[in-house]
Amino acid sequence: MALIVQKYGGTSVGSTGRIKNVAKRVARWQAQGHRLVVVPSAMSGETNRLIALAKEISPNPDPRELDVIASTGEQVTIGLLSMALMELGLKAKSYTGAQVKVLTDSAFTKARIISIDDERIRADLAAGYIVVVAGFQGVDENGNITTLGRGGSDTSAVALAAALKADECQIYTDVDGVYTTDPRIVPEARRLDSITFEEMLEMASLGSKVLQIRSVEFAGKYKVKLRVLSSFEEGGEGTLITFEDDIKMERPIISGIAFNRDEAKLTVLGVPDRPGIAYQILGPIADANIDVDMIIQNVGHDGMTDFSFTVNRNEYEKAKAILEQVKGHIGAREIAGDNRMAKVSVVGVGMRSHVGIASKMFRTLAEEGINIQMISTSEIKISVAIDEKYLELAVRVLHKAFELDQVGA
Amino acid sequence: MALIVQKYGGTSVGSTGRIKNVAKRVARWQAQGHRLVVVPSAMSGETNRLIALAKEISPNPDPRELDVIASTGEQVTIGLLSMALMELGLKAKSYTGAQVKVLTDSAFTKARIISIDDERIRADLAAGYIVVVAGFQGVDENGNITTLGRGGSDTSAVALAAALKADECQIYTDVDGVYTTDPRIVPEARRLDSITFEEMLEMASLGSKVLQIRSVEFAGKYKVKLRVLSSFEEGGEGTLITFEDDIKMERPIISGIAFNRDEAKLTVLGVPDRPGIAYQILGPIADANIDVDMIIQNVGHDGMTDFSFTVNRNEYEKAKAILEQVKGHIGAREIAGDNRMAKVSVVGVGMRSHVGIASKMFRTLAEEGINIQMISTSEIKISVAIDEKYLELAVRVLHKAFELDQVGA
Repeated sequence: MALIVQKYGGTSVGSTGRIKNVAKRVARWQAQGHRLVVVPSAMSGETNRLIALAKEISPNPDPRELDVIASTGEQVTIGLLSMALMELGLKAKSYTGAQVKVLTDSAFTKARIISIDDERIRADLAAGYIVVVAGFQGVDENGNITTLGRGGSDTSAVALAAALKADECQIYTDVDGVYTTDPRIVPEARRLDSITFEEMLEMASLGSKVLQIRSVEFAGKYKVKLRVLSSFEEGGEGTLITFEDDIKMERPIISGIAFNRDEAKLTVLGVPDRPGIAYQILGPIADANIDVDMIIQNVGHDGMTDFSFTVNRNEYEKAKAILEQVKGHIGAREIAGDNRMAKVSVVGVGMRSHVGIASKMFRTLAEEGINIQMISTSEIKISVAIDEKYLELAVRVLHKAFELDQVGA
Repeated sequence: MALIVQKYGGTSVGSTGRIKNVAKRVARWQAQGHRLVVVPSAMSGETNRLIALAKEISPNPDPRELDVIASTGEQVTIGLLSMALMELGLKAKSYTGAQVKVLTDSAFTKARIISIDDERIRADLAAGYIVVVAGFQGVDENGNITTLGRGGSDTSAVALAAALKADECQIYTDVDGVYTTDPRIVPEARRLDSITFEEMLEMASLGSKVLQIRSVEFAGKYKVKLRVLSSFEEGGEGTLITFEDDIKMERPIISGIAFNRDEAKLTVLGVPDRPGIAYQILGPIADANIDVDMIIQNVGHDGMTDFSFTVNRNEYEKAKAILEQVKGHIGAREIAGDNRMAKVSVVGVGMRSHVGIASKMFRTLAEEGINIQMISTSEIKISVAIDEKYLELAVRVLHKAFELDQVGA
């Protein structure tokens, strides 16, 4: 008999019919003797509807009041799901974030969880209740309602699992696990039985949008066993996200190919190669709240260098305009850019102990005539920026080259 | 400079455009130097939408969970209204019932307010904020969310006015005050400048659905000055609901004609005229949660009597079936009934000191050939049950007979 926290996403609770299905699934887990805490998101579309209402009132809504409004989506779902469980003859009880004191800081719309008061939940579990807790929301020390930002329900579930020392935190979503890459691009993509937290972080931040990245960090920090499962299929094992030590020795070197389509590259050509130049270029970009991803500075010659970085495609025009403004001040010759870029990455903890991954990646792309425009690496991933039109081809040939379509590869 | 609590109904905040209009109205009151606490309802249709969702899950939803869901309607409005006030450059802050501790009992879906913690509201008012508090909702001593039942926002506003010792509680609705009768039936109906609490209670319970009856009781008990105003017209005085002593001497004897269309009559014919018979008949009706309104027992003869009462038309078939079941047990000869009844009442504190009101009422109806089927009286009202088809005629002739169309009558 285990204590399990289950999180159901917006699509999984997108209608009253689907909420009833979730209740049946929860009931089956309880029938197996497990104790359950369930964390639903808002019904799909609901959070967007609420935010649209707020924007009709104010183009730039007050964040405290926005959280008052946005948190109602999950509040409706916890009530509905508790009712659906009771309809099955089970004992169930709902709580808002404020009611079980999901204490957060006061950063409205993107608050961070500080602690959870687990006393009431433990008492209910001991009394045979299924406890349904609203995801995405909390309360600050002054009693103000806060929300955790988009995808925050994953973080709520992981935080609850950590506070309750749950045996497992299950994230139910519309896919049945984490794949070696997107099956829409590579039909041979396989579901991974397990993946390490670090790999998952790289996969998530690179565009495999299965889990909110903060929830993965949280799970890693508090050693919560996290599993991604489909809420529409029955009996699947999903993908377990766990610690490197727990994973069997015959683990593949590369776990998957991640990619991101919405990249844009900006290059500042012919800037003086002197200390502080990176700050002079990127400072104004950061001041405009534009996130910068890859950053490359070539070795200079004749006291001059070129400086490149990538941003989200939506921010390209804004970033370019800023660079044109500061161009004179930093003494640059020219601003160039390309907003049709994509990023492809190979990810795997195994590459720490295996040489030759990078060269294999570069050779594979070269054989297909794909030009690599930028490279950046971390301990467990290698990313390249390429022309967007080669994205699907690059993903397919890399997936095959690293034999990700082979079971137990 | 006064402290004013303003309540806006669902129609008044039925769209983001209307919420902006409410904000402008609140701003004008503040510009006149008043301190303001505003209590909005849910946007019109929203509470019904939420309850319909719950009914899709469960035909008989758990009341605790129903309150979790239903309370979100007002939570959205307080956020939107606070934002709209901020858009006008004002300081505003929203609170849910739980946040300002509108403490209620635990009677979910129909909770009663016990107390309100006014400390936070007073501090905000002192700091120049307009305070926006969710109507209809509270929290019990265990932190469970409760709601006050339909129309409960009126009661929230009055309770806040009582707790804050406000100078006035203004109820903004889609009519501009309380009328001598329904203007749709009598075009000459006039808006009353003032009405006593007792009269308002009779008018409200008899079908003039301007104010929730509990809020009027509450205002009477805590001596809150209550005013009904239109949220769609500017500059009106509305109707002040106040204490008899406050009202000028030349007050009319009769304040208005109230009526209720949805009545049904049930008669138990030929029952033994013995003690306890009323309980034997009405006990099973009460057990089935059917509200009984007028009750008449005729003087018996030959040891037998007839017993009549009225119920809401929706409950007619159910009540009749119950009587048929107990008929043998109570020794009744026959059960008769009529579900096309209406009730008409003349209401006025003046009738306490004036004789002849009843006879004038009965004569007026007789002159039109309207048969009176049942009569019941209280200190300040006389009600008659008549065939529904005569309802409009009865209201019109009574309105004229008591000269309610004359200003200062």
